[in-house]
Amino acid sequence: MSLPLLDTIQAAAERIQPYIHRTPILSSAGINMMVGAELFFKCENMQKAGAFKSRGACNAVFTLDGDQLKNGVGTHSSGNHAQALARAASLRKTEAYIVMPETSPKVKVAGVESYGGKITFCKPTLQAREETLQKIIEQTGALEVHPYNDYRIIAGQGTCALEIFDEIGSMDIMMAPVGGGGLLSGTALTTKYLSPQTQVVAAEPVMADDAYRSFYEGRFIPSENPQTIADGLLTSLGSLTYPIIREYVDAIVTVSEEGIVKAMRLIWERMKIIVEPSSAVPLAAILENKLDVKGKKVCIILSGGNIDLDTLPWMNME
Amino acid sequence: MSLPLLDTIQAAAERIQPYIHRTPILSSAGINMMVGAELFFKCENMQKAGAFKSRGACNAVFTLDGDQLKNGVGTHSSGNHAQALARAASLRKTEAYIVMPETSPKVKVAGVESYGGKITFCKPTLQAREETLQKIIEQTGALEVHPYNDYRIIAGQGTCALEIFDEIGSMDIMMAPVGGGGLLSGTALTTKYLSPQTQVVAAEPVMADDAYRSFYEGRFIPSENPQTIADGLLTSLGSLTYPIIREYVDAIVTVSEEGIVKAMRLIWERMKIIVEPSSAVPLAAILENKLDVKGKKVCIILSGGNIDLDTLPWMNME
Repeated sequence: MSLPLLDTIQAAAERIQPYIHRTPILSSAGINMMVGAELFFKCENMQKAGAFKSRGACNAVFTLDGDQLKNGVGTHSSGNHAQALARAASLRKTEAYIVMPETSPKVKVAGVESYGGKITFCKPTLQAREETLQKIIEQTGALEVHPYNDYRIIAGQGTCALEIFDEIGSMDIMMAPVGGGGLLSGTALTTKYLSPQTQVVAAEPVMADDAYRSFYEGRFIPSENPQTIADGLLTSLGSLTYPIIREYVDAIVTVSEEGIVKAMRLIWERMKIIVEPSSAVPLAAILENKLDVKGKKVCIILSGGNIDLDTLPWMNME
Repeated sequence: MSLPLLDTIQAAAERIQPYIHRTPILSSAGINMMVGAELFFKCENMQKAGAFKSRGACNAVFTLDGDQLKNGVGTHSSGNHAQALARAASLRKTEAYIVMPETSPKVKVAGVESYGGKITFCKPTLQAREETLQKIIEQTGALEVHPYNDYRIIAGQGTCALEIFDEIGSMDIMMAPVGGGGLLSGTALTTKYLSPQTQVVAAEPVMADDAYRSFYEGRFIPSENPQTIADGLLTSLGSLTYPIIREYVDAIVTVSEEGIVKAMRLIWERMKIIVEPSSAVPLAAILENKLDVKGKKVCIILSGGNIDLDTLPWMNME
């Protein structure tokens, strides 16, 4: 497999179309007035299983044939990829073995269970996650589907930007949050294929700024004990996503934890939609003046909406 | 003025089109599976000022000429009509005098203020509201715009169903919550004009069941000290809405407070959108088996999304 070209991403879009939502793109006159720009929000929080991850997971699983799938698929994930993979596996009537850190939000554990995923809990370290998954794969013969470091996943995530260009045409700036870089690299590829003059800008919590540092220092720097409310953005870039980001992304900006909560609440209040903290990171960057958007047309991908409704972040900030 | 006919409602749609959102219609495969029906949710929670009330308020205010508007408009309202009228008045560059009970949710007070409405607080009784408004009208010469007992308002609210039929065609059942009956009567008129075989079903909190009792006892029975979390549905039917509802609505069903909170949370979790309790009343009726929807195509109007995000109802139910 090699770097997904436009036709690969288009083929992915066709492959997954029956299994995902074409999510709406919303705007808020109030937020536009606040920031002096024309913002478009692509609502992947309303995607199947509540996040863009369904795109990549469906593309990966529906690329495999029956024989490859016969022993199931496996992954380690604290969150949305786990749910998306469990759902995709259930659509293909095969098992999904999901290794989750024992600290995972209960709403995400419940999501995986609701799609019939077989969960194994482990200590919340990368090493424990990888070792536990390795053991399960040896026992079951399941095929690993990595959350982001996989070209099928990257091509699947790139389908989101296809829908954006189809619906609203070109724009000055395309923004996405960055964790492992699957969404960002897929989005950057599609954007540069379709609209090379559009700037691709990623936003990242300053408390988990491995992508920012890797991008500007020019060498891969993994996350070390990141602490952010944006629980979807804890992971480090991968060996496949990092080179794409280095080549196709124009800038990475970082935001404060307070800024993330403020932006998240603004989206809830003004747009009446539920987004998880990771989704709010690009708007936080705009609100914190980390990039110049004045008078520009900007698209922001809202990555997901899976959040525990019993404890909202602004309730702990008094 | 007389009962709005289809062309009156269509003229209202054209009149208000520049000032309101054409709101999205969303579905949830998960909720459809739970209830065994095909549900469509019309998202008036995403309407300007956060509720369908912007339709009626804009229609009423944009029907008036400059001379009629010169002393401003006034109303008493604890909620969404207040914000909608304040916004509509600001679009016409005239004053909006809003009488609000001192117990109004602070998010709704802030909404009225953000649109430049001039608020006068009063005791939370209908008598105090009416007397306070009367005094202000005498002092200012403002024109009263009633929240629902006004054909211009009813025609405006009826434009929501126009968009629904235009987008998803006909359906077996059209559902709306009922408070004062503005949304319900406008919806019923449009529905019966365009699709006489569609059943129009209203849902109401059992703790504020004046419409239910008036409908089935065949005489107007006002609300007496209603207590419900659905704060948009506290008002009694009006002399204009009651006859329309009696003639054009097929059934009214009632739901429990617990059912409202459960349905509201389900909408938040599965659809990733923010609705206020009033919006959840029709889905609550379906979940409580108050009507038979099996195998049917059902549209539910989600009336609004203005809720205080600091205190969510399920947090007080432990």
